[in-house]
This record gives sequence, structure tokens and C-alpha cells, in this order.
Amino acid sequence: MNRWYLDEKSLPDAWFNVLPRLSVPLDPPLHPATRQPVTPEDLAPLFPTALIEQEMSQEPWVDIPGQVVDALRLWRPTPLVRARRLEEALHTPARIYYKDESVSPAGSHKPNTAVPQAYYNKIEGVRRLSTETGAGQWGSALCFAGALFDLEVKVYMVRASFQQKPYRRVLMETWGGSVEPSPVDQPDHPGSLGTAISDAVRDAASRSDTHYSLGSVLNHVLLHQTVIGLEAKEQLKLAGEDGPDVVLAACGGGSNLGGIALPFVPDEDVRLVAVEPTSCPTLTRGKFEYDYGDVAGLTPLLSMYTLGHDFVPPSIHAGGLRYHGDAPIISHLVKQGRMEAIAYPQGKVFEAAVQFARTQGTVCAPETGHAIRAVIDEALAAKEEGVEKVILFDYSGHGLLDLAAYDDYLSGRLPD
Amino acid sequence: MNRWYLDEKSLPDAWFNVLPRLSVPLDPPLHPATRQPVTPEDLAPLFPTALIEQEMSQEPWVDIPGQVVDALRLWRPTPLVRARRLEEALHTPARIYYKDESVSPAGSHKPNTAVPQAYYNKIEGVRRLSTETGAGQWGSALCFAGALFDLEVKVYMVRASFQQKPYRRVLMETWGGSVEPSPVDQPDHPGSLGTAISDAVRDAASRSDTHYSLGSVLNHVLLHQTVIGLEAKEQLKLAGEDGPDVVLAACGGGSNLGGIALPFVPDEDVRLVAVEPTSCPTLTRGKFEYDYGDVAGLTPLLSMYTLGHDFVPPSIHAGGLRYHGDAPIISHLVKQGRMEAIAYPQGKVFEAAVQFARTQGTVCAPETGHAIRAVIDEALAAKEEGVEKVILFDYSGHGLLDLAAYDDYLSGRLPD
Repeated sequence: MNRWYLDEKSLPDAWFNVLPRLSVPLDPPLHPATRQPVTPEDLAPLFPTALIEQEMSQEPWVDIPGQVVDALRLWRPTPLVRARRLEEALHTPARIYYKDESVSPAGSHKPNTAVPQAYYNKIEGVRRLSTETGAGQWGSALCFAGALFDLEVKVYMVRASFQQKPYRRVLMETWGGSVEPSPVDQPDHPGSLGTAISDAVRDAASRSDTHYSLGSVLNHVLLHQTVIGLEAKEQLKLAGEDGPDVVLAACGGGSNLGGIALPFVPDEDVRLVAVEPTSCPTLTRGKFEYDYGDVAGLTPLLSMYTLGHDFVPPSIHAGGLRYHGDAPIISHLVKQGRMEAIAYPQGKVFEAAVQFARTQGTVCAPETGHAIRAVIDEALAAKEEGVEKVILFDYSGHGLLDLAAYDDYLSGRLPD
Repeated sequence: MNRWYLDEKSLPDAWFNVLPRLSVPLDPPLHPATRQPVTPEDLAPLFPTALIEQEMSQEPWVDIPGQVVDALRLWRPTPLVRARRLEEALHTPARIYYKDESVSPAGSHKPNTAVPQAYYNKIEGVRRLSTETGAGQWGSALCFAGALFDLEVKVYMVRASFQQKPYRRVLMETWGGSVEPSPVDQPDHPGSLGTAISDAVRDAASRSDTHYSLGSVLNHVLLHQTVIGLEAKEQLKLAGEDGPDVVLAACGGGSNLGGIALPFVPDEDVRLVAVEPTSCPTLTRGKFEYDYGDVAGLTPLLSMYTLGHDFVPPSIHAGGLRYHGDAPIISHLVKQGRMEAIAYPQGKVFEAAVQFARTQGTVCAPETGHAIRAVIDEALAAKEEGVEKVILFDYSGHGLLDLAAYDDYLSGRLPD
């Protein structure tokens, strides 16, 4: 067998909340002005009540509303796939499984949280959402979710991407979203995730019909993504495995990694590994301290690994991994020693991505390529040691809108 | 339920051959010089023996080799999906199902034949394949299959597409293929499918280690595609349906339509419908006669509906439907009255594709949009008549590499 499906009825009906399961509790986010813990009231202008509650919830399981389950069933449960041809090419005794999140309409794991975020805003009477997007993965996901729940979506897109990657913009517009380059007030500025967050937050704060929506970092986002790991657990059983020895995923803001890894946190013998780019080495080289989530310092202070909120990562192709900080939950797990972190330069990443494409067939996103690089090295280590390791990773997205990056790699124009 | 899967073990182990089931036999292909029926010997320089046999086979079922089944299992069986949100938006009593062929690594149904073609060439000692591609769907599929069976693949790509659609070229190169703009000897010529076929045939004819490979039209290609319809039959049973009332698919060369429709030919109460563009109306406006498969007149004469081998279709976005002729099998079924044909202008097609994206989530290829247009009209007719029709169509490919076309449509720049 190559692939294991779950019946739609086996889609989880509750998200897995790691917060009450942490032996040491998370540091609270602090208000940027007072440096006191943020209150629900502080967040109310930007987020619906349900998401604010989830952000701080101590319930071990959080029910998934029926309408959200219905929408997730458009593509979930996603397949668990065994990468047999890659195993054979590596001559490894390791068994390599991946959760294929690229099958979502937007092509990545991002809709797992875009859908509930749109839903909770809709039922609380919000008519319109604003958000930022870098390369466009998150913006695409939110426009897709907005189309399902009849919400207007306004996306502030980093101007350099807006100009260089028109396909992502068109995808957002196909779902009915409207896209504007950021910064809105400086037409010659190339923009950054920082300027786009500022534009989106300002938009939401200035309109009573509009909320703001964020695609990673926050606790409720990671909560929504746990459907990935919960499904994978069931599917590994179907595949006859007791469980994984190691779980890996690429880590930018942390939602993809959190989604597959958090349900395994209580399983103490399972290694959890974050894979990041050497050019933006938040977990491997950053400091663990309170820092702003954005460049302008508008967001709460978060306790996390950070390269400094004014750090500008080089323009690597894995745009989703270019973030100065990391989800507080992921940072905490690394700090506590429950999770490992490893970094790779992008040349080695694309080498792995091309090997994957030529054995397994599918062309992955550059972000996903980071996980695949680490998986291949784990599998080769298993061969070296002669052990039958079970490796699980998150195939977080396809690379069909990132082919220019492959072109650079194949023609030798890719800097590390 | 939204989606029905089949176990990998339920992947068909034989292809469905419609040839022995036709009440009136197909007219044979004729040699372009002698106008006598083509012999296996005539075809031997270009194709492996197994494919030549399949081209003329009268066996009702043709076994699928184990290694081909193994490779198809990388993505097959594909899901059967019920388009519930589209049904709700249309307020139709019709039940709409589609076979999702976009989940293949190359993003369309094309690998269903690329894989067996690569396999049969490989086991007969061929080292290298040449082919042509227009927009790049077929070239991508053959490069993917070449990577699986360690065959060199040389793709002659229409120069205009080579220059305007670099992503498809990069995809082919990622799988290890090499791509050259056609015509090779006239660097200022924009090229056409006709010039590219000539370049590819010349390449194969001039090298003993090389065969030629074709992605549509021929009997063996349609044979390989019947896995689509065979799986759909089983999956409709799982969905609790006795069978479809009508089966629809876009029709260019005919492989996608043949794939889903041929297994239903013996079910006489099932309507079969070909959907084509009004700008290239082969079945609805063409003549049924012997004509060449290519512009230069190098191929055998085929008995088919044709607009004339020198017909140059307008440059519509559904590049896969720009063919002057049609598969002899499809042409025969239309001629005999077993299959209907309908044509749409591309504006109406994109309107349907966008409605589909905003209800079902996924963005389809422009070719697939033709089928969706016809499906929506069938569903609206069912509402008008108040009948619970079961509609089945082939979702032949995704539109992620066709977003420029959506941009033209959404910004009002699309001519019909």
C-alpha cells in the first residue's frame, strides 16, 4: 500500500489543545504599551470571542463546529502516503510516511485554520476580514475560506511579491478576494511582511465591520492545525505502525509543524523536529525572549525564539519560512527540550526536493523541501545505524506556483 | 459524504477495450502514401510492439502490467467527488459527481497513458522518447513517467508556449526532461502543434534508441485512460447510485472523454456527451472523413471528424482542446449516434469555472471548465424538468498553471 485514507466520518470532531498538557506553562503575551498580560478585551477589536477564548483555553479538547467540519470535508481527511520509491532510492530500512496537506484547494495546510477563522467571524456578525500575505499562501487560503462563508476578504500583499508573483494574486481574486500591494501609502516601497501586517491591522482597527486574521504563530492557529497530527495517528495505525519514531516539519511561524507535531507531544518517546532555513535560523540561532510579532511593534510581545523584530531575512524562495520569530508554543517546546531544531541552506533543500520529485512524482513547495531534506538525512542515518525507523513528516504544500525557484536551482542560479 | 475512495487493490487490473464492442467496426487508419490500411510494420519504427498490438486489439480486456499498476498507485485510484456545494448553489435536484484526475503528479489525466507508454518502451529496450507538447500538459506527464522508468525524454514545445509559459518547461525539467522550442530550424517561428509533431517524429525516426510517444487521439491512448471510467463505476456504487444518467467531459483529442465515457458505452441508457470550444468545433461543425493527424501530413490518415488538417484554431486558453481532428473512436461514436456533442464559447466556460471555484473550492484547468459549463447547464435543465438526474463528469486537470487565463477573464480581457 502507498496511501491510507480515513472515512470522512473519521475527521476529528475536536482539536487537540497542547496548553493544558505542558508541564511548564507558556509565558503570557504582554501588552506592547503596558507590558502587562494581554486581556481578552485588548484583543476584541481584532478577533472574534471564540478565537480569543481558544487562544487562552485550558480545555484539553476543543469541539470543531459542524459547519467547519462540513467545509473541511471538501478535502479532509487528507491522505497519509508512504514514500516507498524514495525509500528504495535511498536503500534505507526506514519507513517514510507523509501527511499530504497539498491536496487542499489552496494547495497547503493553511485552509485548516482559514476555514474556522472565517466561520467564527461570520457567526459573530463580521462581514469582512483583512489580512497580510507574503508570497501568497495564507492570503489564498483566507480568500478560499471567505468564499465558502460569504465574507469579503481584503489581502495586503508584500509589493515585491504582488509584482513578481501575479499568479497568487489571481488565485485570490478567483475566489473573490481583493488584493492590494503593501505598503499602501508608499508606491515605490517593495514592502515586507511587517508593512503588510501593519496595513491589515490598521484596516481592521478602522472599520467596525472588519476583523483581522492571522495565519500562523498564535495558539488558536496551531490548535486548528492539529487535525493533521490527529488524522496521521489514526492512519499510521491503519498502516500497521505502532507510531512514528520521529516527526518532522518545516518551521516558519510554526503552524505546519505544530499541526503535525502537537498531538505527539504526550508520546514521550517520539522525537519532534523543527526544520528551518539557515538564512532565517530562529530556533537554532535566535534568542529566547519577549519580542514583537511584527516589525512596527504594534502586536503584543510574545515569549519566543527571535532574531529580533527588525531582522530582515534574505529573500530565499521559501517565503513562508522568512519570519524573525516563532510560535510561542513551538519556542516553548524547543526551550524545554521536548523538540529539536535543525537548519539547512536552500541549495541542499532543492537537491532534496528534486530527488523527491523524480522518485515520488510530486513537486513540493520550497518550504516543504526543508522537511524532505531532513527526512532524507534521517533515513540515511537509519541506514548507517541499520535501524527500522518510522519517519513521519508534513507535506505542507505543492510547488506548482514556485516553479521559478526550481528553474533557478536547475540552472545553477540559486544562492544558499 | 463528499468523496469516495477505492482501495489501492481495487485499481483495475485490465483496461476496457471498446473496439470489439462496437456494432459497426472502426474504419482502419490508412498509410499516407499508399492509402492502404496501415500495418504493424509501418508503425514499428515509432512505437513498441505492445502498443501497436493494443492499437488494433480485439480483446475485450487488456491486462495492465504489474509495474504499471504499481506506478499508477502513486495517485490512483483517484477520488470520486460529489459537488454538493455546487448543487446547493444551483438549487438543482441533480446529483453531480466528478472523477478528480487533477490529483496526479502532473496535474491531469495525461499520466494514465504516459506511464504505460514509458513502461512498454522501457521493456522493449528503448532508451529515449520524443514527443511534442503545446501548452505543456502532455509533455509534463511524459517527463514524469520517464523519471519513474529511467528513460530520457525529449519534448518539442510549441515556441510561443515555450516563451510565454516557462513554468511548464520548468516542471518538465524538474522531472529530468529536456525541452526545446519548435520549430527547431526556424528560431523566429512561433510554432504550432503541427510543427512540434513533425520535430518529434523526425527525432524518433532518425535515432535507433528513440521512440515517439503521443498523448491523445490513438486507440491505445484511450484504452489506457479507461481506468477513469472503470473506477468511477465502482465508486458510484459505493455512493449508492445505480449509475449515471449522463457522462460528460471536455473533448480535444478525445483521451479524457474516452477515459471516462468508454466503459459506459455498453450501458445504452447512459447519455455520453462531448464538450468542445466553439472556436474549434470539430465534432459539432467538422466533416467526418479521412484526414491527416498533423499539419504536415506525415501521419496516417484517420477516419474522424475534422476541420481540415490545415485548420488553425484561435489561440484560446484551453490549449488542450485546440485540435483540428478527434480520436477515431470518439468520432465513430458521435457518427453512430451513441455520443452527443456540444460547444461553448470560452467566456461562458470561465464563468462556470469561477462559479465552481467559489463553491467547491478548486480551480480547474480551462479544458475542464468546458465540462463544468455543460454540467451546470444539465443541472439547471434537471431543475427545470424537476428530475433527479445523476451527472458524472471528468475533472481532467487543475488550473494552477493557467491562472493568467483567469486573470484575463476576471479583468474583462477575455475574447470568446
